[in-house]
Amino acid sequence: MNTYQSALFDAARFVRENERFLLISHVNPDGDTTGSTLAMALLLEQMNKSYVIVNQGPTPEVFSFLPRYDKIVDLSSESINETFTHVIALDAADSSRMGDVTHLFAPDVALLNIDHHPTNDAFGTCNVIVPSAAATAEIMYDWCEAASFSLNKEIATCIYTGLLTDTGGFRYSNTTPHVMEAASKLLTYGINSAEIAERCLESITLEHVQVLRRALQSLEVTHGNLVATMQVTNQDFMETMATNEDVSGIVNYGRNIEGVEVGLFFTEIEQGVIKVSFRSRATVDVALVAKELGGGGHARAAGCTLKGLSLQEAKDKVWWLVTKALGVESHE
Amino acid sequence: MNTYQSALFDAARFVRENERFLLISHVNPDGDTTGSTLAMALLLEQMNKSYVIVNQGPTPEVFSFLPRYDKIVDLSSESINETFTHVIALDAADSSRMGDVTHLFAPDVALLNIDHHPTNDAFGTCNVIVPSAAATAEIMYDWCEAASFSLNKEIATCIYTGLLTDTGGFRYSNTTPHVMEAASKLLTYGINSAEIAERCLESITLEHVQVLRRALQSLEVTHGNLVATMQVTNQDFMETMATNEDVSGIVNYGRNIEGVEVGLFFTEIEQGVIKVSFRSRATVDVALVAKELGGGGHARAAGCTLKGLSLQEAKDKVWWLVTKALGVESHE
Repeated sequence: MNTYQSALFDAARFVRENERFLLISHVNPDGDTTGSTLAMALLLEQMNKSYVIVNQGPTPEVFSFLPRYDKIVDLSSESINETFTHVIALDAADSSRMGDVTHLFAPDVALLNIDHHPTNDAFGTCNVIVPSAAATAEIMYDWCEAASFSLNKEIATCIYTGLLTDTGGFRYSNTTPHVMEAASKLLTYGINSAEIAERCLESITLEHVQVLRRALQSLEVTHGNLVATMQVTNQDFMETMATNEDVSGIVNYGRNIEGVEVGLFFTEIEQGVIKVSFRSRATVDVALVAKELGGGGHARAAGCTLKGLSLQEAKDKVWWLVTKALGVESHE
Repeated sequence: MNTYQSALFDAARFVRENERFLLISHVNPDGDTTGSTLAMALLLEQMNKSYVIVNQGPTPEVFSFLPRYDKIVDLSSESINETFTHVIALDAADSSRMGDVTHLFAPDVALLNIDHHPTNDAFGTCNVIVPSAAATAEIMYDWCEAASFSLNKEIATCIYTGLLTDTGGFRYSNTTPHVMEAASKLLTYGINSAEIAERCLESITLEHVQVLRRALQSLEVTHGNLVATMQVTNQDFMETMATNEDVSGIVNYGRNIEGVEVGLFFTEIEQGVIKVSFRSRATVDVALVAKELGGGGHARAAGCTLKGLSLQEAKDKVWWLVTKALGVESHE
């Protein structure tokens, strides 16, 4: 029996040998932590165990289609007068990601920590940490297989949601054969995968639409059509009531334009503080460019924050570095 | 042996017992016909067979990353002085979908017709028609399994492209367990699925960006925030140089806004001719609305064309019917 199997069996013993549990999804919950936590809740119900689910704050309404969503207690608005001897944290890379929850722990608390982040510091008394997994939901799937827990349509819906969201709709490079195999098995339970995808991946806010319009309006295509730049000013943020979350993904519009190699997106967080997002398609290592400006990231997706510059100064500075990175300076 | 297996074996005999082939992808080629056709070309190479690939017109450059893309002969700009006794059509629902190619057929032509459209009229001399398949590429995958053809990274890339594009990135309801199982197996050949997804699903034109901006600018949210309406005028088309293809998908922005039930998109094709696209999220059957206006479609996606009306008149007419469909008239 390998270490992974043995950890999965320990986790199964943890739930089988105890009766009441506190389940915790991580702060600013996403589809993986929410799906994994609700799958755990449904599995506990199957075993006639009882549980309370908490989150430090509200869980986004896009996940309200998930079974037992309404069981999640939002600790920012409700309090719980109970302490728990058995706690399960799902998708929390370290104990701080559980939020402010320690007042709910009994002194001799036993904590099962199930997570896929490579940086997980094994803060549980029982840990199932699988950095090779694309999602904590993938570990939940393996756990059900290893411990012979019965899946059903509801549990499959929760696990599928975690897989789908943490792989960007099966598009990121963490989409392994095993992820797709798990997705295939989950689909056999008759889940409505089209609806799950629509709700989790395609839902947008009105503020997003309004700030997107302004970003598109600012589009400049330069460097022989190789660089697409967009911006959102502080005034745009104020006038559209958009938050940083509402602008996420906008940088991709530039990079996705046919023929464009580098997409740049400047957001004026406040006067003199400009966040720059970089995306590249195939050849330019944007992490190197971002690094020269004090930022970092990956070859195809990077970022940095510039201070004390106007938007135009920031753009000029970045364009100059991108020109060098494109190796096109001799043609211009 | 079932009928499907038997058809797959017949198709295997068709290629094994002959030497030179004409491969045809359908007019206005998409990812499925292109991926399936190029997979066929690569399989023929493995068997030391020779082939010519044709399409009635150009194959979109987004597919240029596929192996043997540059072998596709565009019949609108190049001619071929050869006739073929063995032809393979991939993803063509009827013979007209092959385009104007009959001058390339020998009088005693044998035609292998591999397709998944339910409307396929079995125009080949050998037919493999599988309406339950999400894509012709899924049939190609089953064919390789059934006939024990060896897959490799290049062939897997082509087949994966067909699966991915015809399932809308594994989001449509045709994404069956078998599709995901095939995708899982294809990933084991080390294909770059992230790059394939980026190129096939996320690539956009500059004209799309420009017309999207104007559409977003026209956004009206009405009916107690349940209906989101956008429009593109004839002038917008002219000023942005956008085509009908460039506006595809824009209707979804409205429907995807949180809380919106119906997304409407009006495109003024020419003065007095207005195409209306309908999308709904969960409750309104937009096919019924479209039908009342002489159009049709599905409960969640439908369309119609209105003639002799101005944009505003068209909107008023549609809004009135949508009000009735929402059952909200008593609240307004």
